[in-house]
Amino acid sequence: MPARRLGVAIVGLGGAVATTVAAGLEMIRRGAVDLSGLPLADAPHAGLAPYQNISLAGWDLYPDDLASAVRQHGVLGPAELDLVRTELEAVRPWPAIGNVKFCRNIAGREGANLTSMRDQVASLKDDLNRFKADSGVDDLVVVHLASTERLVDTTLPQFATPEAFEMALDADDPEIGPAMLYAYAAITGGIPYGNFTPSVSADIPALKELARRHGVPIAGKDGKTGQTLVKTVIAPALRGRSLKVDGWYSTNILGNRDGLALDDPNSLASKLDTKGSVLDSILGYKVENHKVFIHYYPPRGDDKEAWDNIDLTGFLGHRMQMKINFLCKDSILAAPLVIEIARCLDLAKQRGQGGVLEELGVFFKAPLMVNGAEPEHAWPEQERRFRAWLDGEGAPGTPTERSEQSLKAAAASLADVR
Amino acid sequence: MPARRLGVAIVGLGGAVATTVAAGLEMIRRGAVDLSGLPLADAPHAGLAPYQNISLAGWDLYPDDLASAVRQHGVLGPAELDLVRTELEAVRPWPAIGNVKFCRNIAGREGANLTSMRDQVASLKDDLNRFKADSGVDDLVVVHLASTERLVDTTLPQFATPEAFEMALDADDPEIGPAMLYAYAAITGGIPYGNFTPSVSADIPALKELARRHGVPIAGKDGKTGQTLVKTVIAPALRGRSLKVDGWYSTNILGNRDGLALDDPNSLASKLDTKGSVLDSILGYKVENHKVFIHYYPPRGDDKEAWDNIDLTGFLGHRMQMKINFLCKDSILAAPLVIEIARCLDLAKQRGQGGVLEELGVFFKAPLMVNGAEPEHAWPEQERRFRAWLDGEGAPGTPTERSEQSLKAAAASLADVR
Amino acid sequence: MPARRLGVAIVGLGGAVATTVAAGLEMIRRGAVDLSGLPLADAPHAGLAPYQNISLAGWDLYPDDLASAVRQHGVLGPAELDLVRTELEAVRPWPAIGNVKFCRNIAGREGANLTSMRDQVASLKDDLNRFKADSGVDDLVVVHLASTERLVDTTLPQFATPEAFEMALDADDPEIGPAMLYAYAAITGGIPYGNFTPSVSADIPALKELARRHGVPIAGKDGKTGQTLVKTVIAPALRGRSLKVDGWYSTNILGNRDGLALDDPNSLASKLDTKGSVLDSILGYKVENHKVFIHYYPPRGDDKEAWDNIDLTGFLGHRMQMKINFLCKDSILAAPLVIEIARCLDLAKQRGQGGVLEELGVFFKAPLMVNGAEPEHAWPEQERRFRAWLDGEGAPGTPTERSEQSLKAAAASLADVR
Amino acid sequence: MPARRLGVAIVGLGGAVATTVAAGLEMIRRGAVDLSGLPLADAPHAGLAPYQNISLAGWDLYPDDLASAVRQHGVLGPAELDLVRTELEAVRPWPAIGNVKFCRNIAGREGANLTSMRDQVASLKDDLNRFKADSGVDDLVVVHLASTERLVDTTLPQFATPEAFEMALDADDPEIGPAMLYAYAAITGGIPYGNFTPSVSADIPALKELARRHGVPIAGKDGKTGQTLVKTVIAPALRGRSLKVDGWYSTNILGNRDGLALDDPNSLASKLDTKGSVLDSILGYKVENHKVFIHYYPPRGDDKEAWDNIDLTGFLGHRMQMKINFLCKDSILAAPLVIEIARCLDLAKQRGQGGVLEELGVFFKAPLMVNGAEPEHAWPEQERRFRAWLDGEGAPGTPTERSEQSLKAAAASLADVR
Repeated sequence: MPARRLGVAIVGLGGAVATTVAAGLEMIRRGAVDLSGLPLADAPHAGLAPYQNISLAGWDLYPDDLASAVRQHGVLGPAELDLVRTELEAVRPWPAIGNVKFCRNIAGREGANLTSMRDQVASLKDDLNRFKADSGVDDLVVVHLASTERLVDTTLPQFATPEAFEMALDADDPEIGPAMLYAYAAITGGIPYGNFTPSVSADIPALKELARRHGVPIAGKDGKTGQTLVKTVIAPALRGRSLKVDGWYSTNILGNRDGLALDDPNSLASKLDTKGSVLDSILGYKVENHKVFIHYYPPRGDDKEAWDNIDLTGFLGHRMQMKINFLCKDSILAAPLVIEIARCLDLAKQRGQGGVLEELGVFFKAPLMVNGAEPEHAWPEQERRFRAWLDGEGAPGTPTERSEQSLKAAAASLADVR
Repeated sequence: MPARRLGVAIVGLGGAVATTVAAGLEMIRRGAVDLSGLPLADAPHAGLAPYQNISLAGWDLYPDDLASAVRQHGVLGPAELDLVRTELEAVRPWPAIGNVKFCRNIAGREGANLTSMRDQVASLKDDLNRFKADSGVDDLVVVHLASTERLVDTTLPQFATPEAFEMALDADDPEIGPAMLYAYAAITGGIPYGNFTPSVSADIPALKELARRHGVPIAGKDGKTGQTLVKTVIAPALRGRSLKVDGWYSTNILGNRDGLALDDPNSLASKLDTKGSVLDSILGYKVENHKVFIHYYPPRGDDKEAWDNIDLTGFLGHRMQMKINFLCKDSILAAPLVIEIARCLDLAKQRGQGGVLEELGVFFKAPLMVNGAEPEHAWPEQERRFRAWLDGEGAPGTPTERSEQSLKAAAASLADVR
Repeated sequence: MPARRLGVAIVGLGGAVATTVAAGLEMIRRGAVDLSGLPLADAPHAGLAPYQNISLAGWDLYPDDLASAVRQHGVLGPAELDLVRTELEAVRPWPAIGNVKFCRNIAGREGANLTSMRDQVASLKDDLNRFKADSGVDDLVVVHLASTERLVDTTLPQFATPEAFEMALDADDPEIGPAMLYAYAAITGGIPYGNFTPSVSADIPALKELARRHGVPIAGKDGKTGQTLVKTVIAPALRGRSLKVDGWYSTNILGNRDGLALDDPNSLASKLDTKGSVLDSILGYKVENHKVFIHYYPPRGDDKEAWDNIDLTGFLGHRMQMKINFLCKDSILAAPLVIEIARCLDLAKQRGQGGVLEELGVFFKAPLMVNGAEPEHAWPEQERRFRAWLDGEGAPGTPTERSEQSLKAAAASLADVR
Repeated sequence: MPARRLGVAIVGLGGAVATTVAAGLEMIRRGAVDLSGLPLADAPHAGLAPYQNISLAGWDLYPDDLASAVRQHGVLGPAELDLVRTELEAVRPWPAIGNVKFCRNIAGREGANLTSMRDQVASLKDDLNRFKADSGVDDLVVVHLASTERLVDTTLPQFATPEAFEMALDADDPEIGPAMLYAYAAITGGIPYGNFTPSVSADIPALKELARRHGVPIAGKDGKTGQTLVKTVIAPALRGRSLKVDGWYSTNILGNRDGLALDDPNSLASKLDTKGSVLDSILGYKVENHKVFIHYYPPRGDDKEAWDNIDLTGFLGHRMQMKINFLCKDSILAAPLVIEIARCLDLAKQRGQGGVLEELGVFFKAPLMVNGAEPEHAWPEQERRFRAWLDGEGAPGTPTERSEQSLKAAAASLADVR
């Protein structure tokens, strides 16, 4: 049986993370780097596409080829770039759906008249079909890496069911953002979809249900790479030892475009919202003094630094402190996760697993859940479920074995609480 | 059914950890403190003795009553001590077995002529029987908290089987240390035994086998409280994310008697030995630059500070660093674990589980294993196994379900490797 | 010659810093503590009032006696408080000038009709005269420790000259805040005045000139205790070694009333304003990425934690980082400075030095300067000037030796620049 | 008047610091880097040789040219090295005096028969004369950067006077190490000499006196770059604020050849000896718990990390902590100091200042002093004296203004004490 060939279409192909993915895959193909940082490098699995067999394409608002983008983000040094320049220069993003008025970027697709959402979706599907045909891959996956969109109220009626959503699409409903259109195009095209950003995308009831009906695996959202990863690794142990968290002060400094974007209070709000909830969920009580800050700090560039201070109370009321200083690199932590998410979504599709793939929660700050289920945030349990899924076991507590019955019960009890 | 009453006999009753246990239990009985720091406070279990029902006694080389010891170690402030002084003054240690020539401390037991090991063991059993009778508890547990003894070669022939050990005892073999005598007295007296220190005690084949034959649960060794706990919490996540550990530099500063003892290169050697191995075991490869230091630093007293620096390589060979600074308190972290270990050993006995109780590995730096089995060091997996055991489930990978067959296979393959 | 006796009247007597001053002085009088933390403990000087000879009084909006205040702020433990309770209970604040509508707190001074600023000033002077008479001290000093007031534009015409200010007082000008009234009452009463807060007080041209005319020494403002102290200690060395500061990220967490107040963006603004300028002044260039944050974080109480990250560029453009984590106590650092400032102001008065006492700049984040002069922020130079002044030498660069001529030249060139 | 041209002969030309000096000077000449990290870049002074006018040569045990050495130490990236490769390839070290049996490295100087110290010195002088003649510089300076030698007892009689030392030289006294021979050759050749290493070199009474007689400025020893610099910057402020240092725990990790050498307990001993004394000297009392560790930690390469923890007691006995984490680069901090030391020694010679140049103490961990004088370790005072000297002022407390009389008195009182 020939090894699987996978095509990954990325929303936001010119960004720092996507270009790191692209550069990394080419370097791997060249044999110029080892597989450090790829969580599944040591987990060969017949159904996972080999790293060498992944083709990359995608959309961006800027038309620069990937070699230019790599240079711009400083992902590779000059000597490294030389090794893979030809391959990267050959990749130019397709024009993205604009994020201001939800229409195609004119510069990119001259003359096209894509004013309706239906036209936009059709155009995205054309891109995907052409990519599949041209690249000769066995199958596709779409991963969202574009800039964070504004917060959206996911409980609006037009997002509640596939039928309502279809009607809203017909009406070019202004509440539908670009990230939803990409998800819709992928899902209805039978293509697995992962959302690595905090934007509201497939995480509305309508699209989750559509994914279930089409048998398309989806996963998200907001990649868990730095401080939040550490938080969800440490907090379970504090709970295990009954060390009471009196306060957790977290600050981040980073100097890349992400950091600049988060200087905008609106984007920051959604980011902080995502980050804030994990702690209470893991510890089982409300941490009164959980503070999270992100500051744009240009000297760091793509390097990112997190400083955490944790105030603890232990036996006999004694106070202790833990401080964690993580000097990391944003894109370097994110890119390999993007690659593994794509490979796993493709594996799920081969296995016939449609709908929300909760078992990929280990990769996300806000794990996408079947409606009514509460996300697991503790890294140890997430990792165990993920590895069990990978091994083909149904892990306890995941939808594989949850009956319709118990799901309804969970939903009902949640409704009661609210 | 009346709540269970448990007697805990501690080796090293006058030390900082033991006095913190004693003071804490009295404060809890008084309702003067909450249950912070006790891992099983929220896990009520019919078979676990309530904290209020635990009686304390034990041995020490110094005859001071517990109120004096509490004052000396600064465990309680004056106002707190006032609340429980009467109860603590009533507890005086029994004279301990000397650690120099392995004979009873004369000052403590005047006129006694306990020169043979058999006499010493008999005397320890007398102490335990008297404690049980006087206190009216349902059952006893022994926990070892005395100062670290010198390294012992556990592969000596006299430690290989119960029969060889009995003969060595008859001969007052100088390789048998006091910690082994306490363990032997407990096990052959049908009393569960836990070793919270790095000393060689029940972790020799002869005593493990004796525990199995007598149906007595045993556990150990070397309580996992501070830096090593954090290490075994973080390292699994680094492995999960395939972040390669290029180096891990750990230093500890502490100012209590423990710190002073570890200024002695011999004691330090055994301590570092225990600390060093956990990382390679979790990560699955040899960390070339794993360095661990412990320094006596009087300004800290019982407060302990750990500083860790971890050098990581991620995707595309990029370098990152994580630094962890844990400002903790040695006895405050250790004492609640001692209490829970005692309660769990007692629960195991009620359940009829004899021999090495591997499921308590979560509490130890060097988990005591059935002969031939490799210890699990990763905290997440240890915690999962422990909680599953507590819930009465046989967790996969623990001896409950391991067949004789597979154990022999494991032992055989290990023998091959060595 | 009998040792000098000094009375210190504090604005904000019930606050954390003032009560620490009060408790500390009583403990010193009792011989219950040593002189740790008092910068001049080892600098006996005939003119400095001995610590034992300092009497304390002052104003506050709350009428609680000092024993209550000490208990409330947790300055002393119960046993310590017992030693000095009688003395502290005897001190009750005089009613303060209200900070809302600039009138006396009615509850405190029943029946008084102090609606005009002139009446308020007269009343403050009465308080001071009565204090001096009752306590029998040789002389008085006033130190401002009350909560930070709103920002005031110091360049308003009514603040430009004594004459303009007097007219504004007559007119109950709403731009005149309480902190100015205290300063005015002290200065015109011939009493030295120090401002330990960021509020605008004696730092307007009118009051500086009045102080010069009355021969009254004044000093300020905003005590330099924690992070800013460290910053002004480190930065001169970075300049000395030509290590370029690319960015300096500073964050503070503290949980006392000060921290809560600074959660108010207005108060924070003035605080940050003070903190921000020191770095550029010392380094001689504009640090593009100097960020300072203060966060209210209740778990810390009066303990304060500062975390600084400094990004540096050295030889051949190589990048380096320094991180400083200061776990300190706000009031414990501030109180001894308040005591020394009072003693030094009193010494200056004895020496006949009126007007701005620039040599005390070492104690302040925003050193009060003679009009037109630029403050020195580098701690080493501040300390040198201060010690030289104490020794009675005229230090180069301080007003003692600056001629009228050069001052005018400085003012002129400044005017040119602006 | 044409700008001054200076030749610098370095002992240990192939080491990391020396190659950084060489690469840096070439890059500056090329205009490829700015002057970051050079303390006197902003202090143009007629007598200081411009950076562009410095020629480099020197001795090493290894014969590799400087381009090879730069590549080996990773000082420059490939693209940068390309810019200056031709110039660096042209510089080959002269063969150094061997450090084992104190004879010339045979491989380097085939056929030479330099068994006597007198011959070795003559040969060193030949090297220097040839360098001066060939390079056409105005004058020379020698700077010592070779590996640390074993500790030497500086109070031996043969080191006490020039006469005794000359006799010892004649006798090939085995107590005379290579570092002394280099110093002797320079001093008697009228060439200023600086020692940047901890080795005993010009810091014996005989050579100091010789330098005075020959009117040759000398300076040393042991460059103050990282942790010790920070310590001498912070400690004066702690003293200024009367914050009592209860303990200071310092650890260093570094992975270059220096780190490896310091894994040797003998070399470490002399290093720690130098580092230890500065604190007590600055604070004015003995810090009981001052601990300094240096660990070889290969992941860091030439990068160096220092972690300091300082325990402080302040007002009313309250405890505080400061922690400093300095992520720096050894050679990058050292190289610019070497350049400035050379320029300043040359300036001193032009000014006619012979003997120990104490004013350069700011650059050294163990400032070389006129016999009988105590070194100043506090960075602020060192910096002030240095800048004053540079400006041509005689700073108080430096030898310029100390009379013979007072020096003798100091020496006498020291003799009394000992």
